[in-house]
Amino acid sequence: MDPIRTFFRGDRYAAHSGIELLEVKPGYARARMPLSAMHLNGLDIAHGGAIFTLADFAFALASNSHGTIAVAINTNMTIMKATKAGTLWAEAREVSKNPRLGNYTVEVRDDAGDLVALFQGLAYRKSEPLPVPPAT
Amino acid sequence: MDPIRTFFRGDRYAAHSGIELLEVKPGYARARMPLSAMHLNGLDIAHGGAIFTLADFAFALASNSHGTIAVAINTNMTIMKATKAGTLWAEAREVSKNPRLGNYTVEVRDDAGDLVALFQGLAYRKSEPLPVPPAT
Amino acid sequence: MDPIRTFFRGDRYAAHSGIELLEVKPGYARARMPLSAMHLNGLDIAHGGAIFTLADFAFALASNSHGTIAVAINTNMTIMKATKAGTLWAEAREVSKNPRLGNYTVEVRDDAGDLVALFQGLAYRKSEPLPVPPAT
Amino acid sequence: MDPIRTFFRGDRYAAHSGIELLEVKPGYARARMPLSAMHLNGLDIAHGGAIFTLADFAFALASNSHGTIAVAINTNMTIMKATKAGTLWAEAREVSKNPRLGNYTVEVRDDAGDLVALFQGLAYRKSEPLPVPPAT
Repeated sequence: MDPIRTFFRGDRYAAHSGIELLEVKPGYARARMPLSAMHLNGLDIAHGGAIFTLADFAFALASNSHGTIAVAINTNMTIMKATKAGTLWAEAREVSKNPRLGNYTVEVRDDAGDLVALFQGLAYRKSEPLPVPPAT
Repeated sequence: MDPIRTFFRGDRYAAHSGIELLEVKPGYARARMPLSAMHLNGLDIAHGGAIFTLADFAFALASNSHGTIAVAINTNMTIMKATKAGTLWAEAREVSKNPRLGNYTVEVRDDAGDLVALFQGLAYRKSEPLPVPPAT
Repeated sequence: MDPIRTFFRGDRYAAHSGIELLEVKPGYARARMPLSAMHLNGLDIAHGGAIFTLADFAFALASNSHGTIAVAINTNMTIMKATKAGTLWAEAREVSKNPRLGNYTVEVRDDAGDLVALFQGLAYRKSEPLPVPPAT
Repeated sequence: MDPIRTFFRGDRYAAHSGIELLEVKPGYARARMPLSAMHLNGLDIAHGGAIFTLADFAFALASNSHGTIAVAINTNMTIMKATKAGTLWAEAREVSKNPRLGNYTVEVRDDAGDLVALFQGLAYRKSEPLPVPPAT
């Protein structure tokens, strides 16, 4: 298993939220979150926090995909559509990158392909490599 | 129990994330999230998604505090400090409100009182009242 | 001259900033701003306010392109590259639209085609048509 | 004249927009913009670009107030109120600061003291001192 997939196995809040890594390559990532009762808010629609967590996970994958640690410093999310059921799909793309900063756009879509949320993420890029978790 | 507290008992993702409602009054709310292993990411710090979910919960409380439904349309969050343990505390304040839109600022702090994240939330205000969940 | 072009002839701050409308059609617009000394800040690079004004102009064109008034309620802009000279080019695309809200992405590029800024705009859509300025 | 005031005398777009520096001290700044015809858009209200430029100027003052160069990397602005005339007043406060990043909140108000816009600015802090313009 490659280092970034190994590293993200340690993401417990993503696991707790039922998020699955689909693909990661330099500057790009995809993930999904099959909706269940735990993701809903009081209006019986997917919670903004759950949608954000999915988008943020894809953003973290893409921004850490170059092998060094990147941490989120700013995020902006616009929500366009309420979702009640099915699976949410996130796709993160790198917009720009310099030695210290990286910008990413994440689109979150529902099973119909409609845009549910548009997310912008700005990451601060550190010099140290991704930590290697101990073999288990 | 007042309608807004009753309504937010139906927020399953907040409950799943261990978030507790502390106070809600018109245009204002407080909540907290005691950190445990489930909130951490691969760097062993609180996940941006967990911090956001706490902030978003406080924002939802404050924006729905006037008795009619308000839904999030845009959020912006800047993360200032990594947190490993303890409790995160969120305080939401209404910045402005007109018949259709409401703006809220949420501060998320750690046990030392340091700012962990600053969150801006913009809500679209509907005309219908908060639904009353069936008595249980 | 079509109503939207006529309407935007009344945008005095855009004119004061040397911004030129290139194209506008439903949900889409392009504009440019040839840089001169008046656009610079104390570091001799294009001022964030000038870059924003160009992006905001393209956003306003695209969001008002359906013939009814749309007003900006939230904007987010990430700046990627400093620009000293040449022309800045803005292209606005509609991301989503419902009867009350519209979301737009604006890319601002330099003469080399490099991304200078990425802008997200959220507009509140009113029911009334664009005002028709008096014939001159 | 102190270095930061001297430095900001070189901000030509702020001058072109009629913006005046009122106060600057470490982590804090105030500025104003008396509205005239040049600041208006096609709806005869203050242009979002003009409001942003005022807020961005106060943000730049506050983020450069520690004597080293800080450049804007992300801005978020919510507009609450339309303004037709009078003066707009901006006040920037430092929310957090570490060696590389600084966060600032700027409130823009009208003559009645009502909030016109709320602005969040994130700056990247460089190591080099503010340039000293040549004496004139």
